[in-house]
Amino acid sequence: MSAPAIAYADVEAAAARLRGVVHRTPVLRSREADARCGAQVHFKCENFQRMGAFKFRGAYNALAQFTPEQRRAGVISYSSGNHAQAIALAARLLGLPSLIVMPQDAPAAKVAATRGYQAGCAGSEVRLYDRYTEDREALGARLAAERGMTLIPPYDHPHVMAGQGTAAAELIEQTASEGPLDLLLVCVGGGGLIAGCAVAAHHLTPGLRVIGVEPEAGNDTQQSLARGEIVHIDTPRTIADGAQTQHSGRLTFPVIQRLVESIVTVSDAELAATMAFFAERMKIVVEPTGCLAAAALLHGAVAAPGLRVGVIVSGGNVDLARYAALLGGDLR
Amino acid sequence: MSAPAIAYADVEAAAARLRGVVHRTPVLRSREADARCGAQVHFKCENFQRMGAFKFRGAYNALAQFTPEQRRAGVISYSSGNHAQAIALAARLLGLPSLIVMPQDAPAAKVAATRGYQAGCAGSEVRLYDRYTEDREALGARLAAERGMTLIPPYDHPHVMAGQGTAAAELIEQTASEGPLDLLLVCVGGGGLIAGCAVAAHHLTPGLRVIGVEPEAGNDTQQSLARGEIVHIDTPRTIADGAQTQHSGRLTFPVIQRLVESIVTVSDAELAATMAFFAERMKIVVEPTGCLAAAALLHGAVAAPGLRVGVIVSGGNVDLARYAALLGGDLR
Repeated sequence: MSAPAIAYADVEAAAARLRGVVHRTPVLRSREADARCGAQVHFKCENFQRMGAFKFRGAYNALAQFTPEQRRAGVISYSSGNHAQAIALAARLLGLPSLIVMPQDAPAAKVAATRGYQAGCAGSEVRLYDRYTEDREALGARLAAERGMTLIPPYDHPHVMAGQGTAAAELIEQTASEGPLDLLLVCVGGGGLIAGCAVAAHHLTPGLRVIGVEPEAGNDTQQSLARGEIVHIDTPRTIADGAQTQHSGRLTFPVIQRLVESIVTVSDAELAATMAFFAERMKIVVEPTGCLAAAALLHGAVAAPGLRVGVIVSGGNVDLARYAALLGGDLR
Repeated sequence: MSAPAIAYADVEAAAARLRGVVHRTPVLRSREADARCGAQVHFKCENFQRMGAFKFRGAYNALAQFTPEQRRAGVISYSSGNHAQAIALAARLLGLPSLIVMPQDAPAAKVAATRGYQAGCAGSEVRLYDRYTEDREALGARLAAERGMTLIPPYDHPHVMAGQGTAAAELIEQTASEGPLDLLLVCVGGGGLIAGCAVAAHHLTPGLRVIGVEPEAGNDTQQSLARGEIVHIDTPRTIADGAQTQHSGRLTFPVIQRLVESIVTVSDAELAATMAFFAERMKIVVEPTGCLAAAALLHGAVAAPGLRVGVIVSGGNVDLARYAALLGGDLR
């Protein structure tokens, strides 16, 4: 087995790079959540992160390490949404052009926000594609070659993974005064967040169990762990648009294999109910993908009686019309 | 002119009484809000308060001062919603029975939550009435007399006013390191919140201007200030159900006259747009009444270029179906 793509030192270096740039997002509690789970639940609210999701951490950590030449040519990326916004914002903050390849059916708010983050940053643009017929990785690679831009993929990159790991490192630090966490629940798309978080958790709190959560329809990583190799699936149809990945990464999967205890799944209905829970009880807006980890706990996919549990709430970017429809029970 | 109902010492005593019981709610910032107003805006998020609104402060401060006899007989109150929940929760925490008189058309979530807060607290109940035909004050007074219970009205009570003032005191303390606030915006229903906050502001930051915000349809306090006496209006129809009061209080109005610079109004459409702003940009759920102060700033009823502005976000209790409808633009 080759060495893992990142070590804790990479997360630590990322944290230093991100200091003063990312928000140290709050950790919220809820009496109702504790009562329902019989646990002490700590929600790490990355929906309050800059651009509304944890993705900003990894994007900024990657772009901040560009050489002067890379900065001149700029960055290219493809994403179902939040990574796009993260790259666009990080690029503008660092003064380099960004080309973002996004699916045509990405939430309108995400496309608009990405363009908004690029505003005033010369040479930046959004390129739309059809995710049911075109292969975004091939398209991204071709455009990157044509323009000499550096491709930063949404998860399978050590700098991205290390950046995402700072979310767990912060959560562990923020909750340390109440005793060590027993369990950390993290949503899984391509695995960048959970890989980085697992590395941080493993180093900072030996014995802290890390469990991943996927949508039922998109359980490729669960299948991959069972099979012992990366399983490719068709683009899953789920309301968790940030977890509509077809497979884990070549870099993220070995880390997940080594450090993640298991992957559980939740249904779209459970995601919608969790979104309503966050709105009604905690007064926070969480996007469907951001509800994955909490849904596993609130709906019993993971039992945690008596445990101290960390839950990563990954983001809050959801088109308002869609949000209203989902709160109203329309899961289409 | 008689002495005002409360002085700053009352707010200070309330703060001591509430310590460890109320949440010290966060003060949030938004780059977008700052950019739109050309100001430095500090949102005091009482939607994260226990039971979801500032009302818990005043209710607990009042009940904590009951004599042993008053505790035995219990508390009675009437409310369009949040005060009811606040009294119910404070009563349960202090172990005394509560009788809550609520309008039949109060949001379902508020009635259910009130009953939830009373659960397990012997002798507690909710009594519904028709707010378009019955007079809640007369009804409340009659029931109080019949049962020997102490009536704690939603705003016109010195202990309630002093408790609410702790919200501004906290905000001022939480923002002190960035320089004194220039302007404080507070929603106005019966005036308990703004009276308490104005007393705190006046004492802690001399020169801090306090401006009240009412819904267009329910501008009784604005009219009262213009006329120099308390004006009574019909129950206004507005989505800001917490500001559907018919008149300021005999105790709150003199404080408002003395310490509040002016009252401005906002439309229901501006409230709904502000609710969407909070959801989309700040990822927080705010009820219509809680949007009043922010709406005045974001929609230009108050100009604040270059100023440090405090905005009280008063609460986040809104029926989810109604919230979804309002986000979707349905203002009925």
